[in-house]
Amino acid sequence: MNIEQTLTIFQQGTDEILPLNELKDKLKRKKYLKIKAGFDPTAPDLHLGHTVLINKLKQLQDLGHEIQFLVGDFTAMIGDPTGKSKSRPPLSREKIQENAKSYTTQVFKILDEKKTKVIFNSQWMDKLTSMKFIQLASKRTVARMLERNDFKARYKNDDDIAIHEFLYPLVQGYDSVVLESDIEIGGTDQKFNLLMGRELQKRYNKEQQVILTMPILEGLDGVQKMSKSLNNYIGINDSPDNMFGKIMSISDNLMWHYFELLSFESIETIANLKQEIKQGKNPRDIKFILANKIITRFYNAEFSKQAQQNFINRFSKNQIPNDMAEFTFDTGIKIANLFKDAGLCPSTSNAYQMIKQGAAKINSKKITDRNLVPEIGTKVYQVGKRKFARVTIK
Amino acid sequence: MNIEQTLTIFQQGTDEILPLNELKDKLKRKKYLKIKAGFDPTAPDLHLGHTVLINKLKQLQDLGHEIQFLVGDFTAMIGDPTGKSKSRPPLSREKIQENAKSYTTQVFKILDEKKTKVIFNSQWMDKLTSMKFIQLASKRTVARMLERNDFKARYKNDDDIAIHEFLYPLVQGYDSVVLESDIEIGGTDQKFNLLMGRELQKRYNKEQQVILTMPILEGLDGVQKMSKSLNNYIGINDSPDNMFGKIMSISDNLMWHYFELLSFESIETIANLKQEIKQGKNPRDIKFILANKIITRFYNAEFSKQAQQNFINRFSKNQIPNDMAEFTFDTGIKIANLFKDAGLCPSTSNAYQMIKQGAAKINSKKITDRNLVPEIGTKVYQVGKRKFARVTIK
Repeated sequence: MNIEQTLTIFQQGTDEILPLNELKDKLKRKKYLKIKAGFDPTAPDLHLGHTVLINKLKQLQDLGHEIQFLVGDFTAMIGDPTGKSKSRPPLSREKIQENAKSYTTQVFKILDEKKTKVIFNSQWMDKLTSMKFIQLASKRTVARMLERNDFKARYKNDDDIAIHEFLYPLVQGYDSVVLESDIEIGGTDQKFNLLMGRELQKRYNKEQQVILTMPILEGLDGVQKMSKSLNNYIGINDSPDNMFGKIMSISDNLMWHYFELLSFESIETIANLKQEIKQGKNPRDIKFILANKIITRFYNAEFSKQAQQNFINRFSKNQIPNDMAEFTFDTGIKIANLFKDAGLCPSTSNAYQMIKQGAAKINSKKITDRNLVPEIGTKVYQVGKRKFARVTIK
Repeated sequence: MNIEQTLTIFQQGTDEILPLNELKDKLKRKKYLKIKAGFDPTAPDLHLGHTVLINKLKQLQDLGHEIQFLVGDFTAMIGDPTGKSKSRPPLSREKIQENAKSYTTQVFKILDEKKTKVIFNSQWMDKLTSMKFIQLASKRTVARMLERNDFKARYKNDDDIAIHEFLYPLVQGYDSVVLESDIEIGGTDQKFNLLMGRELQKRYNKEQQVILTMPILEGLDGVQKMSKSLNNYIGINDSPDNMFGKIMSISDNLMWHYFELLSFESIETIANLKQEIKQGKNPRDIKFILANKIITRFYNAEFSKQAQQNFINRFSKNQIPNDMAEFTFDTGIKIANLFKDAGLCPSTSNAYQMIKQGAAKINSKKITDRNLVPEIGTKVYQVGKRKFARVTIK
């Protein structure tokens, strides 16, 4: 494979590679590059949003490059010492090990464990003296740090920025100095921090890393970033049926974006699929291809085939699935609360809306009374085409 | 002595005490307070500008309070790691010890060595891990730090502020946390940093220090801050004759300010002296009193008396002093360059001006030709009434 072909693989699906000519130069000079990606050991449930980046790592790993899978345990152990951010409580060393274990187990569904170097930055950060830390802080200016979009906005709005928040990007950048990374990969929202590594390497007289950013994956709604808290995600531990159903629920537009970011299909293949739709093919069948690609990756072809069959049975033939969540409630519960508590609706007001739209059913029969109090017994409760629960009222 | 009387001594000559009611409260609760003053071990030549603060410490030491003489060796060992500031090169541990020794030797001309606690902040800062350091940095905000006047101006003017510069005030404040200081004393230009100690103590659940600021002493010119680099200073190692001459050279207005900040005279005594001048006393005689007070403190009454006699001989009787600096120059040097190189004038243009004013003399004879090339031989060169040099042209 020549350098131009290699570059094409590097570039596929990326947002930016900066500077591209330095990447070319590195590829000319070195057989294998050190490719760093940093992970926060705080959120162990991976979803497809995370896999955009991990897929890219996998591609480059397959080319023979070394993946530096960096766990940012040092800062996680500190958390947010101001106590203001609930999302950053300090974690114990044990909890971090546990999270990291869970994280890597999931990551190794994609990456090759044997070829991946898992590294914890506490290894050098714990030993860094306060004197060395001050020297590190001297390498960058306050004005430069305030250029980061979120800092800029907060400073402008008089929202507090604690001084240690300026230190975290320095720590992340210093990791690149220690690891002598050739490339650092992150989401587009990480660009500032990735450049920090590049700048610090220069200040420490190291060869500078090239930065490679990947787009942020939209969630199932096609608008917001995929995230667990927005409940618009496909978890990589989701069941094949669940994955299949969720993928089938996305818009046709979003499907193409998922193809680009989540499948390993070449640009040509994707163009051909688009052509087929123009020639009259049902987009549902193309979505099947996407769903099969993804489920095959995380499970296998057999599971994927079964998930597709279940989907067809459930929706195309309007059947009720065999497996579903089961709940038991005491008699007297109102239908809207039941839907909410069984996880079929996010809120009672949403439940009322679903009933009004005729999308709520008991044993396939539409519910018309929004104040219904279900009778004793076990029945299948359904919202929309995909959400089912077997509920016992006792 | 009751609390009101003690407070009067605390307040004498100060710029601010904040908050005064907390000082009262501390004095009620505790017999002896811990009084912190920080010193940079980088500039070992003390002048009277430094003594304003040291005199205040001496006053409070005489009341029985404990002086925490804090040497900021930790930051001095780092210096300015950006390399931009020539005034803050990093110092070795040995050099710092040497500077601190020289510093305290001079300080103990005023303070009682036996009652002064000399402390180096490297004692705890060296041991502070980077994790603890980040926690320290989390206690203050970027916006609060940018309120410091010099930072504000530099940020506004797009002048670089390296991030570590935000860390130094935190270190200084953290010293107060460790030392559990009751009071911190500094110049008015230190107010921001003194308040930092107060705020950090609160964040670390310690009793807060009261801050006490002392005015900045003007130099001999009566305008700019006394400093070695501006050559408008009276060094505490200056000879008695030199001290005497310099004090006699100041304006009558400045004399009163020096009385307030450099003598230990009470407000009443100073008021009486002012009254005497109004009644016709020669201000020169009042200046004699000031000079005698200062020289007696750094030498003794005998030296002071001799210095006064030498001064009277030299100026009042217009005699030439016995001791003066000696220089040798090659023939051909122009008079203006000679005055500059012998340290009698700060510049050749100043030399021209002195000649024009008739203030420049050779062996007591006025110079009229500004382009004079002095002849071979040894003569006394003089500018104004106080500057003499014995110069040999060969």
